[in-house]
Amino acid sequence: MWIYEKKLEYPINIKCKNIQMAKYIITQFGGPDGELSAAIRYLSQRYTMPTGKSKALLTDIGTEELAHVEMISAMVYQLLKDATPEELKKAGLGSHYAQHGHALFPSDAHGVPWTAAYIGVLGDPIVDLNEDLAAEQKARATYEHLIRLTDDPDIIDPLRFLREREVVHYQRFGEALMDVYDYKDSKKFY
Amino acid sequence: MWIYEKKLEYPINIKCKNIQMAKYIITQFGGPDGELSAAIRYLSQRYTMPTGKSKALLTDIGTEELAHVEMISAMVYQLLKDATPEELKKAGLGSHYAQHGHALFPSDAHGVPWTAAYIGVLGDPIVDLNEDLAAEQKARATYEHLIRLTDDPDIIDPLRFLREREVVHYQRFGEALMDVYDYKDSKKFY
Amino acid sequence: MWIYEKKLEYPINIKCKNIQMAKYIITQFGGPDGELSAAIRYLSQRYTMPTGKSKALLTDIGTEELAHVEMISAMVYQLLKDATPEELKKAGLGSHYAQHGHALFPSDAHGVPWTAAYIGVLGDPIVDLNEDLAAEQKARATYEHLIRLTDDPDIIDPLRFLREREVVHYQRFGEALMDVYDYKDSKKFY
Amino acid sequence: MWIYEKKLEYPINIKCKNIQMAKYIITQFGGPDGELSAAIRYLSQRYTMPTGKSKALLTDIGTEELAHVEMISAMVYQLLKDATPEELKKAGLGSHYAQHGHALFPSDAHGVPWTAAYIGVLGDPIVDLNEDLAAEQKARATYEHLIRLTDDPDIIDPLRFLREREVVHYQRFGEALMDVYDYKDSKKFY
Amino acid sequence: MWIYEKKLEYPINIKCKNIQMAKYIITQFGGPDGELSAAIRYLSQRYTMPTGKSKALLTDIGTEELAHVEMISAMVYQLLKDATPEELKKAGLGSHYAQHGHALFPSDAHGVPWTAAYIGVLGDPIVDLNEDLAAEQKARATYEHLIRLTDDPDIIDPLRFLREREVVHYQRFGEALMDVYDYKDSKKFY
Amino acid sequence: MWIYEKKLEYPINIKCKNIQMAKYIITQFGGPDGELSAAIRYLSQRYTMPTGKSKALLTDIGTEELAHVEMISAMVYQLLKDATPEELKKAGLGSHYAQHGHALFPSDAHGVPWTAAYIGVLGDPIVDLNEDLAAEQKARATYEHLIRLTDDPDIIDPLRFLREREVVHYQRFGEALMDVYDYKDSKKFY
Repeated sequence: MWIYEKKLEYPINIKCKNIQMAKYIITQFGGPDGELSAAIRYLSQRYTMPTGKSKALLTDIGTEELAHVEMISAMVYQLLKDATPEELKKAGLGSHYAQHGHALFPSDAHGVPWTAAYIGVLGDPIVDLNEDLAAEQKARATYEHLIRLTDDPDIIDPLRFLREREVVHYQRFGEALMDVYDYKDSKKFY
Repeated sequence: MWIYEKKLEYPINIKCKNIQMAKYIITQFGGPDGELSAAIRYLSQRYTMPTGKSKALLTDIGTEELAHVEMISAMVYQLLKDATPEELKKAGLGSHYAQHGHALFPSDAHGVPWTAAYIGVLGDPIVDLNEDLAAEQKARATYEHLIRLTDDPDIIDPLRFLREREVVHYQRFGEALMDVYDYKDSKKFY
Repeated sequence: MWIYEKKLEYPINIKCKNIQMAKYIITQFGGPDGELSAAIRYLSQRYTMPTGKSKALLTDIGTEELAHVEMISAMVYQLLKDATPEELKKAGLGSHYAQHGHALFPSDAHGVPWTAAYIGVLGDPIVDLNEDLAAEQKARATYEHLIRLTDDPDIIDPLRFLREREVVHYQRFGEALMDVYDYKDSKKFY
Repeated sequence: MWIYEKKLEYPINIKCKNIQMAKYIITQFGGPDGELSAAIRYLSQRYTMPTGKSKALLTDIGTEELAHVEMISAMVYQLLKDATPEELKKAGLGSHYAQHGHALFPSDAHGVPWTAAYIGVLGDPIVDLNEDLAAEQKARATYEHLIRLTDDPDIIDPLRFLREREVVHYQRFGEALMDVYDYKDSKKFY
Repeated sequence: MWIYEKKLEYPINIKCKNIQMAKYIITQFGGPDGELSAAIRYLSQRYTMPTGKSKALLTDIGTEELAHVEMISAMVYQLLKDATPEELKKAGLGSHYAQHGHALFPSDAHGVPWTAAYIGVLGDPIVDLNEDLAAEQKARATYEHLIRLTDDPDIIDPLRFLREREVVHYQRFGEALMDVYDYKDSKKFY
Repeated sequence: MWIYEKKLEYPINIKCKNIQMAKYIITQFGGPDGELSAAIRYLSQRYTMPTGKSKALLTDIGTEELAHVEMISAMVYQLLKDATPEELKKAGLGSHYAQHGHALFPSDAHGVPWTAAYIGVLGDPIVDLNEDLAAEQKARATYEHLIRLTDDPDIIDPLRFLREREVVHYQRFGEALMDVYDYKDSKKFY
């Protein structure tokens, strides 16, 4: 189970409304390679991992991805907060306003609702860790695209932090893969 | 952000493999009225709630629903754990085994992947709390259906616990709705 | 069965082409909280209602929602009718034109096709009526968002009418819920 | 708008519970080539038809398809009505019961929710009528498959009636296509 | 099996970047009536065709549709190639860039991922050929919409070629339908 | 473009009807980790690969995956060919028969239609090749699950062949990744 701690993993303080960036950043909430995909993927996969270490790693990273969902949500919320319907319309978020007002909805940047079809859970630890390595790479690339779409340092700074975390997770999944291979080898010999 | 505590909100100890029940219970993981729907719905809605009390309530219940996702996951995992491919086939989970082995995947009981189309986030606190009241009722009915599909007390006991929690949440959302109405009234007069 | 009467429940006479509003209003045709969702939800739920009164109410309101589908369709059709491809492009409906020309398609305002995942039918009358109360609230909020996106009285007038009908339906579903509770109580005693 | 008349287009009186057939027949409610697809397709397409005759035909047939949705719903309801959870489980509807109890839900026979992706509305009358001709053929073939899956005359009889209606609609759409070609020719010459 | 020949069925040489047209043309890659729908539809249907001629025709046209997928892909790629993030943003492709960079993804013009729900495979040759006739008409209309959205001859020329191919396929499916009717008649008499 | 050669990449000669295995194997046609996912993924990604070698590799493997779609289709077709409706019903394919007769449809083993949400195309060569490495692992695991669900050597033999091909592709994608890293390094220095 989880205990909520009322703080963000990394601070979000966006001073300038930027509606269009909200539209793009939402993909890291409910898009194919976003933080919700990551959290649900890892927290689903952990049950069939063979070692305590790999189970713990997926739980840890899955839990951190929930914190990233929260960071992305805070960003989108701050970017949209005081926008008038007219401003939302002009920035191409009239459709979002019609359906969700100023609220957050787990969709991609086109408004397509999140689907579990985005994630793979095969029950084979080597396969699932390969899925995770790819997932971290895809999330990293999406953050790089988002960073190139703006020049506001208040937006870029947390996106960079999140991008860095994907790189760290990629490395840790690589280590977990080694751990699982070792475990499989040890089972063969003894 | 969240801190993971390595225990279940309520213990799951299923002694008899029951593959078919795993197939049905999975709907409370990734089905329309399951725990994942609940968690994502409440954690998305909280940003546009008008009072500290309603924001906190959605955060608390959303966090508890994550713990329920974990309980349902533990149930499905225990129910499927040592099943052979032949047993899975006979119990109607051959399709699940082909695609996911012994792992968990966030789908409904028919194998349809979870989609955010199941949840409503409109950004109006009265509307969103009505959505939540309905959601708790739907989750309750699903637990009642599941309880009637088995006579194993190891399965029924945690399902009853989860059913009870939905009733409590329903009451708390009712109180939050009153709180929001009071807030709106107070704003009109002062 | 139904008999078609060749008139709209409420007149639609839009004098000024407004392509962008067509894009937003379409969500009340094929979006999550639109009239098609309402009609199909109520007409599906009526079979498992326990009293003649609740069955009849769902049939009546379901039938009226079909008339609302028709009103929304007429609005979208009038808003788009003589638009050139160039005008559609400029107003952000180039994608719609490429796929559907000047026709109507049951999608939301982002172009996502309608899915039955939007509606809940649980077969328990108390649960289903709670779903319906929430649905009417969500439809109401969507109409309010749409009204704030325009200042054309020809558009606002029918949207207001439709908004009012949702409020009436909400009240009638509340009464039906009382009726079902009474019926359940009466069954306990006799 | 529509007026509801409290009778079925053709009587449904199923005397023997047949849970498995309910599972298959549901595809003509919420499956790709079912009656809901038909009704929504025709009622959406009518706006961009060029002649009064073709507009009226689509309205008429669309209205009749709503009556067919109701007939299919009545069949599924009668086939499932008094089934116990145990019986539903044995017949392969345990998943349906978990999620929907004894109620109807607009899905296909696999439990996949209906989606507007099943229908085509292109706004060109010749194209849309070709879509309709194909739709009637697909519905006909589905009814033939369903008829071959049972030998209960109470089920076969209304399925045959519905199959016949598809054949009639196919012919009428063929005539409408001729009408539209004539109209186009007449426009070229005068 | 297939052998790849490194040339396009028809040359694509787009000299002017046109980001917005890329957004629209993508629907003929991954939209409802696009070339991917066509290829998968025909290559799936061929197994249950009754004559060598109809099987061969579906294989041939299905194979040609793969070449059309490639032509459309080349068009979208050339239209997007050197666009900066800023240009993509201005032309309404910021969402695409966030999720896919400069790459192609099989979605419609709204960004909705391709789904097999778009195609019909019923296993009855007359029905499936009717589906194919309608499909060719829908593809033709989409090409006509696309042609009206631009005046660049480098774009119009290959779209016209593709439109012409749909007309030819329509005729060939009509002939195949005759062939299947003849085969059915011959089976009745001998 | 592609030229069709009328032979399978590897022979399929299934002597015993096995309806249930058809239901499972279909996931390698239209399921998340099946051959259609693979073909469309690679053929979409190739445009944004930076070197001739990586472009050619994705074209080659994408083309081979089309041949695998064909092999899987032939397997499903042979497994289902002469099954009566009654047999299909008993083996749990009554739903398939109702909707598709004896035909093939690109769905997963639960009947969920294929969706492009299964594939990732990010436009960054390193990311896309990581996606491909994961995809090959997932396909391999699915083949291993399928092999464990049967003991018919006529089925196992082609599944083993296909499984082997995934391993080879995995290795070749690893090499392509090295090639792309080399290319990136070379660009840094000169």
